[in-house]
Amino acid sequence: MKTDVILLGHGSGGKLSRQLLEDFIIPILSGLPENNRNDAAVIPFSGDRLAFTTDSYVVDPVFFPGGDIGDLAINGTVNDLAMSGARPLAVSVGLILEEGLPLADLERILYSMRAAADRAGVGIVTGDTKVVSRGGADKIFINTSGIGVFDHPWRIEGGNARPGDKILVNGPIGDHGMAILASREGLELGTEIRTDSAPLNGLVATLLEIAGADIHVLRDPTRGGVATTLKEIAIQSAVDIVLEETAIPVRKEVTAACAILGLDPLYVANEGKLLAFVSPEAAPRVLALLRDHPQGREAALIGEVNGKAASEGKVTLSTAIGGRRLVDMLSGEQLPRIC
Amino acid sequence: MKTDVILLGHGSGGKLSRQLLEDFIIPILSGLPENNRNDAAVIPFSGDRLAFTTDSYVVDPVFFPGGDIGDLAINGTVNDLAMSGARPLAVSVGLILEEGLPLADLERILYSMRAAADRAGVGIVTGDTKVVSRGGADKIFINTSGIGVFDHPWRIEGGNARPGDKILVNGPIGDHGMAILASREGLELGTEIRTDSAPLNGLVATLLEIAGADIHVLRDPTRGGVATTLKEIAIQSAVDIVLEETAIPVRKEVTAACAILGLDPLYVANEGKLLAFVSPEAAPRVLALLRDHPQGREAALIGEVNGKAASEGKVTLSTAIGGRRLVDMLSGEQLPRIC
Repeated sequence: MKTDVILLGHGSGGKLSRQLLEDFIIPILSGLPENNRNDAAVIPFSGDRLAFTTDSYVVDPVFFPGGDIGDLAINGTVNDLAMSGARPLAVSVGLILEEGLPLADLERILYSMRAAADRAGVGIVTGDTKVVSRGGADKIFINTSGIGVFDHPWRIEGGNARPGDKILVNGPIGDHGMAILASREGLELGTEIRTDSAPLNGLVATLLEIAGADIHVLRDPTRGGVATTLKEIAIQSAVDIVLEETAIPVRKEVTAACAILGLDPLYVANEGKLLAFVSPEAAPRVLALLRDHPQGREAALIGEVNGKAASEGKVTLSTAIGGRRLVDMLSGEQLPRIC
Repeated sequence: MKTDVILLGHGSGGKLSRQLLEDFIIPILSGLPENNRNDAAVIPFSGDRLAFTTDSYVVDPVFFPGGDIGDLAINGTVNDLAMSGARPLAVSVGLILEEGLPLADLERILYSMRAAADRAGVGIVTGDTKVVSRGGADKIFINTSGIGVFDHPWRIEGGNARPGDKILVNGPIGDHGMAILASREGLELGTEIRTDSAPLNGLVATLLEIAGADIHVLRDPTRGGVATTLKEIAIQSAVDIVLEETAIPVRKEVTAACAILGLDPLYVANEGKLLAFVSPEAAPRVLALLRDHPQGREAALIGEVNGKAASEGKVTLSTAIGGRRLVDMLSGEQLPRIC
């Protein structure tokens, strides 16, 4: 790598993060092959399979419109399990607290975690609490890890996108990132932008039950946004992806806020959205299914995997004015501490 | 609670930690009954049982004699699984990095994690990396979570101590805490005190294989030390415990350093020690077994559970000069950021 210290951009979820992970952390810690990177690890266990995932949350501010670090931490881990096709079985909570954190704030966050866990139907079964002195951490950091089980035989993973697959999203993108940013910067936007943070395991269970064999990849476009997530999948599956800009749902207040700040909604984080790669025959049925679900009312078909079999993983956007541009991963740091 | 903010003592592993957990965090997050607190949660799964545990590490300094935050984080989670009687199956790693952390330091820590995982025979299968800006965290915090499986039918847990049980420890106590403290404060002690940080799953597997039915409780005396851990077990099992001060192994350099600093080795953290509650008939055999193992050469029988059945959980120390004193949990904060 070209630096000898950790940069903020190493946490962006984009190119620098990927470099740090692929070239440095993963080879040392696990030696797993590069194409085996998914939201959750799959572990064979006594004839079954277990999913296992972990995420730390350092979001700033801790409270924001529509949620807080607590429900974000539960939803994030529940969603990582769901995206691997697993049903969440149990969640752990590791708290790192800064000395001086008001107990009232901690209480509010804990209740929010419990409510999120109840909503997702998963138990918080084990935990750990550490305290560091004032200035040693910023208010509260939360790690959640989760175990999931598979109720079906399908392999849902990033390397499984196939030529011809249609790409669906379950609603408008960019809400979470813009909610955090507006709240952190105290932007006055007229309309309040709320996080989309939500557990997606119920929606995924429905999709898999009705159309399991036709769903090839599920991924939640968090840090780095839809663009970075699709680029990762394109590389993992060695396919080309074409996106239709006009088909991508974005709330007008998010578009407006992005315009003011010079951001592209395609790179802004989501916490209650999923991208589904679906076989072309099943796509209309799956889209209808999504739109029938409370978490998919504004679902849309936003692109497809190019018919060509092998590729280096190119993602192209057909723009509103008829142009074409290449979509790359987020480079550098767009929004630090977004989750 | 008597405070409205988080205090350093809430992270000590002693009385304040217990209050925060029992009266505040656990009731809100999980509603688990108080006597169900163990190093790992046990989850029924398709006819089997899974163990699940999590721990965050914020130790300061990051590097210390005999180890660093990396192997500490792996050993700690491996040991939590082992203390529940489970065989570690997989570990996750969540990194929170401070902007500006030298990559050389990160590399050293990652290699140390991998070596510890290899030594324990467990894979690091999933992970997450977050970066916070300079001053938002102190160098590096690590969360490790772990999944374990049970290869035997025994229930090893804190509520399972029985009247008459003998209490064994696998070696001298207080090494880890004093290594951290000496290193942090730059104490010149003549002899360097090294952490005892080590994975205990191999030792536990041997114990369970040979004497599983006779081992009632296993617990690693980390934060809060042997005193706090025994007091917790006494309360959980509703038994009285008597300790023989002269039987408790402590290295002379640890005794000396504790004397200088006014600390009691009974309250100092360990990271490669276990306490085993064993039926009286099996105790000589288990002690011999421990002493035969590289991690138990200096094992000792340090006390027993009083014959009386029901109790409020009293721990008494028979002192070297023939007195008796009550042992309570650590109160307040003895050594912040010890793990």
